[in-house]
Amino acid sequence: MEVFVTGFEPWGEEDYNPSGEVAKRLDGQVIGSARVRGLVLPVSYKRAKEILINAIDAHRPRIILGVGLAPNTTCIRVERVAINVMDGGPDVDDYKPVDEPIDPNGPAAYFATIPIRRIVEKLKENGIPAVISNSAGTFLCNFVMYCALHHVALKNYDTRVGFIHVPYTSQQSARKQKTFMGMLPPSMPLELIEKGIRIAVEEIIGELEHKHEH
Amino acid sequence: MEVFVTGFEPWGEEDYNPSGEVAKRLDGQVIGSARVRGLVLPVSYKRAKEILINAIDAHRPRIILGVGLAPNTTCIRVERVAINVMDGGPDVDDYKPVDEPIDPNGPAAYFATIPIRRIVEKLKENGIPAVISNSAGTFLCNFVMYCALHHVALKNYDTRVGFIHVPYTSQQSARKQKTFMGMLPPSMPLELIEKGIRIAVEEIIGELEHKHEH
Amino acid sequence: MEVFVTGFEPWGEEDYNPSGEVAKRLDGQVIGSARVRGLVLPVSYKRAKEILINAIDAHRPRIILGVGLAPNTTCIRVERVAINVMDGGPDVDDYKPVDEPIDPNGPAAYFATIPIRRIVEKLKENGIPAVISNSAGTFLCNFVMYCALHHVALKNYDTRVGFIHVPYTSQQSARKQKTFMGMLPPSMPLELIEKGIRIAVEEIIGELEHKHEH
Amino acid sequence: MEVFVTGFEPWGEEDYNPSGEVAKRLDGQVIGSARVRGLVLPVSYKRAKEILINAIDAHRPRIILGVGLAPNTTCIRVERVAINVMDGGPDVDDYKPVDEPIDPNGPAAYFATIPIRRIVEKLKENGIPAVISNSAGTFLCNFVMYCALHHVALKNYDTRVGFIHVPYTSQQSARKQKTFMGMLPPSMPLELIEKGIRIAVEEIIGELEHKHEH
Repeated sequence: MEVFVTGFEPWGEEDYNPSGEVAKRLDGQVIGSARVRGLVLPVSYKRAKEILINAIDAHRPRIILGVGLAPNTTCIRVERVAINVMDGGPDVDDYKPVDEPIDPNGPAAYFATIPIRRIVEKLKENGIPAVISNSAGTFLCNFVMYCALHHVALKNYDTRVGFIHVPYTSQQSARKQKTFMGMLPPSMPLELIEKGIRIAVEEIIGELEHKHEH
Repeated sequence: MEVFVTGFEPWGEEDYNPSGEVAKRLDGQVIGSARVRGLVLPVSYKRAKEILINAIDAHRPRIILGVGLAPNTTCIRVERVAINVMDGGPDVDDYKPVDEPIDPNGPAAYFATIPIRRIVEKLKENGIPAVISNSAGTFLCNFVMYCALHHVALKNYDTRVGFIHVPYTSQQSARKQKTFMGMLPPSMPLELIEKGIRIAVEEIIGELEHKHEH
Repeated sequence: MEVFVTGFEPWGEEDYNPSGEVAKRLDGQVIGSARVRGLVLPVSYKRAKEILINAIDAHRPRIILGVGLAPNTTCIRVERVAINVMDGGPDVDDYKPVDEPIDPNGPAAYFATIPIRRIVEKLKENGIPAVISNSAGTFLCNFVMYCALHHVALKNYDTRVGFIHVPYTSQQSARKQKTFMGMLPPSMPLELIEKGIRIAVEEIIGELEHKHEH
Repeated sequence: MEVFVTGFEPWGEEDYNPSGEVAKRLDGQVIGSARVRGLVLPVSYKRAKEILINAIDAHRPRIILGVGLAPNTTCIRVERVAINVMDGGPDVDDYKPVDEPIDPNGPAAYFATIPIRRIVEKLKENGIPAVISNSAGTFLCNFVMYCALHHVALKNYDTRVGFIHVPYTSQQSARKQKTFMGMLPPSMPLELIEKGIRIAVEEIIGELEHKHEH
């Protein structure tokens, strides 16, 4: 089976994006019975959607795991839900939607179709701080998650979709200005972030194969 | 030369203390021209002081670098100053001082005698988020820092003294309850914390040797 | 027209609940052309729903504005969306759902049907810090918001529904233990919270009447 | 007796400074047996010191209570200690000291000579969230506190000196951009801040008069 791991390019003040790095690092790797295709999306509503939708139709992945950077996050956040809103920007094409629907005909929200609680438990067992998050925001991360869930629903594809927010890397935090309470932003080494994403993919595959067996 | 690296035992709600782990890991190691003696102190005002003072008098270290856990800290904090106050507890002996002086005849404060700014710069160059901190609190960490600085001042020992606060380890954060804004507390892998303390020791030694040469 | 303002009773560690206080204070008051009915709901999934649904059916309010306490919030948060999940507790009846749907047949989410952006702008013009929030959590606040939106949708009632999270009151914060970074939790005087809720109600009424006129 | 309440002018990104507003509001008022002189200092190391020292020598106040803005603070912070360091800027004269002593011949620190714990308790009894703080930073607030304590020590004046940090006002927070975790910065209404400073002054006077009586 094929697994998409998507990340983002750097944008705005962020000249480095750990999510894109992880997508590049995992691209071509084999995890369990699956081969990973890493996609690095531009932080553009319009182009990210096109690239993603085209890739889904072309490759029909069994799993899509989006990854995105959440500045000031202390740990890995496995997203529960994507909502039908674009409210944030400007993106790199200078588009700045305010309270716009992603699809005026789409439902208000989709829940992730990956085992979010198991993933969080597994990450913590492996010493990686993680929580379930109830908001993926209203910018590109939520957008990509919604677009993927909406597209596979419309097309009736048998594809599991989820999204994970990751903190700054340690290297990245070390280059930042002091912000909150005189400290640098919370962070995690890139290796630990990558390990976390790999564990999440394993867990999603494991659940699919387990279901298949019975 | 001999370098003391002190840490603390677990205490209260904290059943694991990365500062004590680092002291144990570095104990006996050679860093540059120095040999490290790792001391794991109890979280007891009375006993921590006795053990520390006796060890200083017995071994006359050239450098004393205290390390302590600061819950909810996002990065390594190199302390600038220790103040003549005990205000926090209870410690493990159930002692809970309120606004008491450490030594009624001591000065209000001592500045660290290690190159705090260089250490922070060096840590950041190595991808480890770090800041100068202007308060070591009023519990055991500040106490140990003040006691060491006060003792070497009274005895006129030629000893450099500093203190570094470290965050929870990633493993430790992963075992915590969600706290701030639905997230787990910020953290750093133990290996990165240990690397940071080692870099700090190298930097202090480097400065001493550099001065000696000229 | 009738306006429901709902709040909650104290629960768990919180022996005071500003949301319930505001509901009591506004009960019976006239705001513009509307009369307020203040409802103080128990922090019980089962009973809060029953009381709320029965009151809606009995009184057919034109507007339902839920209010709830969000500990550690710095400002007023006007919620955008309620999701079909119960994940938090235990409530006062010792019920502790994990990732359960509120209604297995309900949609994943409903958006608030009040003018959230206008309310936030109006609050800020009046010197009250406020933001749009994209998550009402997964405990009673989200539950009440979802239940109200779901019920009026099923019954096809012409009722506007929204939810606002409020911080601790100043009095309440002053009674707390120090928590985050040695500080007390953020807060707002009860009078300012009440003023904020009143402004929100005025704004919702104003939009309804404005639409009616044209 | 005369009481100085000092505040600061707006500076940098802060076009409004609640500390200066409070100093202006209290100027000329009578609190208990004391008359308040409100001083609004420029955010300039050089000029703030000159103005303050000259005013102290000219008026010989019995009490000096400095007030300053601490962005992102959730509550009133009564400072315990001022340290002999300037490390922050640039100030409005473009001076940006790094790790410089305020006075190379001065002690490392002075403790506040006002009853910090009583003030905090009294504030909390009055519903105003407050804590003792162990760092006034290393910018103008710490500087003014150190300068005042150092000057009255050198001149042997019988003057009590303290410093209090205050949060943004609610109005001010409402004009800010969202920052931490999608929320506006924590705040307190100006009236509550002013009330807090007045209570602090009353408490300092009360302690002085009480001591006098016995």
